[in-house]
Parts: sequence; structure tokens; C-alpha cells
Amino acid sequence: MTTPLAQILRGIGPLDVEAMEAARARQSQLVKPHGSLGKLEDLAIKIAGIRGEAAPVIRDKVMIIMAADHGVVAEGVTVYPQEVTAQMVRNFLQGGAGINVLARHIGARVVVVDMGVAADLEGARPHLVRKRVGPGTRNLAEGPAMSRQEAVRAIEAGIEVVKAESERGGDIVGTGDMGIGNTTSSSAICAALTGAAVEDVTGRGTGIDDHRLAHKVKVIEQALLVNQPDRRDPVGVLAAVGGFEIGGLAGVMLGAALQRVPIVIDGFISGAAALIAAELRPGLKDYLIASHVSAEDGHRVMLRHLGLEPLLNLSMRLGEGTGAALGIFLAEAATRLLAEMSTFAEAGVCGVDL
Amino acid sequence: MTTPLAQILRGIGPLDVEAMEAARARQSQLVKPHGSLGKLEDLAIKIAGIRGEAAPVIRDKVMIIMAADHGVVAEGVTVYPQEVTAQMVRNFLQGGAGINVLARHIGARVVVVDMGVAADLEGARPHLVRKRVGPGTRNLAEGPAMSRQEAVRAIEAGIEVVKAESERGGDIVGTGDMGIGNTTSSSAICAALTGAAVEDVTGRGTGIDDHRLAHKVKVIEQALLVNQPDRRDPVGVLAAVGGFEIGGLAGVMLGAALQRVPIVIDGFISGAAALIAAELRPGLKDYLIASHVSAEDGHRVMLRHLGLEPLLNLSMRLGEGTGAALGIFLAEAATRLLAEMSTFAEAGVCGVDL
Repeated sequence: MTTPLAQILRGIGPLDVEAMEAARARQSQLVKPHGSLGKLEDLAIKIAGIRGEAAPVIRDKVMIIMAADHGVVAEGVTVYPQEVTAQMVRNFLQGGAGINVLARHIGARVVVVDMGVAADLEGARPHLVRKRVGPGTRNLAEGPAMSRQEAVRAIEAGIEVVKAESERGGDIVGTGDMGIGNTTSSSAICAALTGAAVEDVTGRGTGIDDHRLAHKVKVIEQALLVNQPDRRDPVGVLAAVGGFEIGGLAGVMLGAALQRVPIVIDGFISGAAALIAAELRPGLKDYLIASHVSAEDGHRVMLRHLGLEPLLNLSMRLGEGTGAALGIFLAEAATRLLAEMSTFAEAGVCGVDL
Repeated sequence: MTTPLAQILRGIGPLDVEAMEAARARQSQLVKPHGSLGKLEDLAIKIAGIRGEAAPVIRDKVMIIMAADHGVVAEGVTVYPQEVTAQMVRNFLQGGAGINVLARHIGARVVVVDMGVAADLEGARPHLVRKRVGPGTRNLAEGPAMSRQEAVRAIEAGIEVVKAESERGGDIVGTGDMGIGNTTSSSAICAALTGAAVEDVTGRGTGIDDHRLAHKVKVIEQALLVNQPDRRDPVGVLAAVGGFEIGGLAGVMLGAALQRVPIVIDGFISGAAALIAAELRPGLKDYLIASHVSAEDGHRVMLRHLGLEPLLNLSMRLGEGTGAALGIFLAEAATRLLAEMSTFAEAGVCGVDL
């Protein structure tokens, strides 16, 4: 590759080991039994390594929600009709969706990106970021969902979006998605990149019944048969069975890592994007924080493949970045504990050498 | 019993079924797939039932941290010396402890209560609430930790503290503790009230080694042998092997339930208090929200006995109410989602009859 994407991939370095050591040293002096903050200690050290600071401070929190439509809805794999994607984008902009409530609760900005919604959302500007790759993907059961060029464009769009948000001051990014049909695409990506059986990584999405679930599995199996995606070619997998918002989110992850911004990933759709991003840049997972494990079948398979352990397990499966918002709260809790707790010496408390 | 305690116990009623039905009905109209917010949906409905409101709003959050000392430290069951209890109380008042950081992060007030710290904390007033039952308990390995009267006084003190905080506007209460030696007392309470084997519910506290852990188990077994606590008499169990802060926290739980204030319980010590409170008033568990499962052995046994499922599992074992603070954040997230999300009709999104 000689595109900007190739440069970005080369630019993503390892975590800052010195900052992590300094964070670990400070952690051991804080006024608490050693290790007693559990996963929050590891999380703070990871963020220190990403930011390259011994006690990083999170000020500006950004939720990036990417929306697009999916041609595969023609196969009848969803409960909700395709119009719901655009309707929900409008709802995001009006502040009435679950992610809006949680973003307010954690004090985060919400950035909504049209990566390729089928309906005309011209009226929704200027608050909607437009990075449309096309008016929804083609039906992946009949052939590639998008061209290879479109796949690269989607990833690069995500990189641009997160670069702009980082320049605006974003210290941490959460990922979210909207796209009727996108669990079908995500299951296909998961099967293609992890080698798992389709039926093991295909779930009910927004709530399909047994009959439609069996049909969804068949549609995905057909898509893999028709497209023959090569697991060593993540851009090819995205083009074959992906979605524009999934490519965009993969770009957000890569672009954030380049800017040394921690990325809190949401559930199943973000997981599919993470699989693609991590395949493009081994080591990317060090920049990813898995917020929760979704109730959607297959998410555990994704997280295991990525080598990530989720912070939360609340049986959520809404998407939109709702899990990621809760994860950002925990990430901020972890960094604040590291930065703000007194040391034994400062507090005048007897320390113990263990 | 003809004490105020008996009246309080009689005054705690069942959850408000109508409010829960109304909350459930609203939940089903919100613009999301049915059930897709998982445990946060159940949590919001539970809080609706406690508050007696279809869409309760949490404004004033209160963390109640109770501190006391334990005579059993004479047996060498802890890593830290007894002075640390008083030192940490001063640290709470100065704002440098883990719970202070997390309370700031969630926007909660911190109320610190001296239930019976061995050291003189007179200088720490007026910010320290004084409900001292005595200068620490007696050594439970040699006889009762406190008298029956003292046990009742500790519980009643907790009821008074939470009543005052509820009158100041507290909408939700989190429990926390400080007391060198209090995991020993909590393990003894757990064994006495659940019938579990001592070694199955005794952990490392702030970090004792294998040798001291074996000794701690023996000390607790001796305490149960010497005191012969009767599991049908929770006040007697508290008197025999409890702590003043544990009795106080049991009182906070009972008093909060009386005021219809949801109680987010912390880890192992709060769990011991919950066992006593729930034994005194069956049905109390409906008012309790289990924030997390502690890394301390035996906490799972407590939660199972109480019939509570924890929201978080972050391998934390700091105490102080740090888990409860995170739980309050989730409780507020749940109620805000219920109250603030648009309905399908408001958002103009196609609903689906499932």
C-alpha cells in the first residue's frame, strides 16, 4: 500500500513503557493495599502508556457514532426496517437516544457521522458530519458489499474524523454505531477473520426469532461462499462483507492510536471494526479498551481473538456506543484515582512493605 | 423487641408494584430494542419500586463511610496496624482517599462516621459524625466483641445517620467502611449466618500471606466456638463477632429502606452488614443494589445468600465504598435512561410489535 493508510499504519508505535513504569510506581505509593483497585489499576497504567504520561488527565471525552445502511436487509435478516437508521441518526442529533443520555451522564461530546445512510440527511447538517462513502452497501449475500476503494475510503474517513476530534482536544474516544443490518455484516467479518463457525457468532441483533436467526446464518454462510474473503486481507474482508460504518470505526481506532488517544470500544459492531483494525496493525489492541461484553452471540469470540478483557457485563446489546460511554466513565475513574489519591506519605498513613 | 429498632423493622414495606409496572411500561416504549439495556433496565425498575415513582430522579447522592476498630487485631490477623483506621479517617476528611476521588467523580457527598475508632478523633470534628459505641470492639476470639446493648446501639446509630442524610435530600445512599481487622469480623458473621465453612469465606483482607491466612481461619473458628452465635439471632451474631461499623452499616440499610431510599452496597464488609440487616428484616434485599463482587473470598457466598447479583466485577478489594460509588454511577445511568430517553413516538422512529 502506498496510500495515506499505509503511512498511518506505520506511524502507530508501541505503548510508552517508561510512562507505564512511572504510573506503576505511583500506583504502589497510593494509600491503599497493593493491587486493591483491581482492573482499574491496570486500566490506568494502560492509559498512561497510550498517552505517554505518568498520570494522564482526561478532560475532553468524545463519543464517535458512525451510521450507515446495509444492502443485506433485502434478505430479511432484521426486525426493524431500513428507514430506522436515518430516523435514529436524527434522534442522535436531537439528543433523545440512549447514547445521548449516557454521554450527558459522563460529560462527553457526541459526534454523529453519516458514513453512508440510504436516506437523504441533508437537512440534518451542520451537526451531522458527512463522510458518505455511498448510499448504503450492496447486498453481501450476492457479491461484495463495497469495492476495495470504498473500503479504504471508509477507513480513511474514520481516521480523518478522529484526527479532527483529537485536534479539538479529545483525550479519549468511545466508538458507537447505528445501521440496520450491521450485526449480519459484523458476524460475517467475525467468521471470516477468526475462522469461527457462522452459527457460533451470529445472534439475534435487535431481537429476531429462531426462524429468522436460522435464515440469517444461511445468508452469512452464502455471503462467505460467494465472496470467499481472505483472512490475511482485512481490507478485502471489509469490502466483501463489511459496512461503511464498520470501516469508519476501524479507521477511528487506527487514527486514535496514531494520535495516542485511548479508544474505548463498544460492543459487537465495534468489535468487528476492531478485528479489521487489529489485523491491519498488529499491536493496535494495546490502544483498545473493551468496555463491555455484549449479549450478542459472538462478541466473546471477538474479544478473545483480540486478547481483550471487557470491563463490564451488563447484558446490554443496544449499540450506539452505550457500553463505550460506561467504559469511558471507568477509564476516567481509573485515571483520576491514579492522579488524585494521596500517597501513604502525603496522607500520613503507615505504609507496609509487602 | 420493643425498641425503636423493632418499630423500624415493622415500618419497612414491600416495593411499590404500581410504580414498577409504570416504569416497565415506559421502558418498553423507549426508542431501543426490547430489553437491550440489559441489567440497567432491571435496575431502573427496582429503583422505581423503592422510590415509589415511575421515573425516579437521583439528585443528591450520599456515600456513608463508617469506621471502627476491632479488638481481634491483637491476634495478628492483619497486615496494617490498628492506627491506620484513625489515619484513614483523617484522610477521608482531607479528601485524599480512593473513595474521595470516586465520590467527586460521581458527584456524591461523603459522610464519615466514627462508630468506634480506638484513637481520639476529637480534633477531626465538626466534619466527622460521631456515633461512637465504644473505643473499638473486644477481641472476638476470647468472647463477645460487644454487648447486646452495644449491638443494638450500633444499628440504631446507623438508622439515625441515614435518616438525617435522607432529610438533607439524599436520594440514594452508598455504603463504605474502614476498620483494620474488619474482614475477620465479616468472615465470622458470614460463617455464622450462612453456615458456610470458615475457610471458604475467609480471605486475605489487605494482603496477608498464606501463613497468616491459616492463622486467621483458626482465630475465626475459635471465635465461633467460644461465642456459639445463633444464626436465628442476628443481633446476637453481631454482638458476638461483629464490629461497630458493621452494625452501623446494617442500620444504614434498614433506615434507608424505611425512607424508601435505594442502598448501593459495597463489598465484603457491607455484605456482612447486609446479612445482618436482611436477617432482621426479610425482604430488605429488595432495597439493596449490589455494586460489585469483591476479590475477597466469601463475598460471592454472601451475595448468593442474599439473592443479589453484582453489577460489576473489577477484582477490587479496597473497601471504603469504592465499589458502591461506581454502583451509584450505574444506578443514576439506569434512572436517567428511563427518564430521559425519547419514546419511539417522540423520536419519530418506527416501532416494532414483538
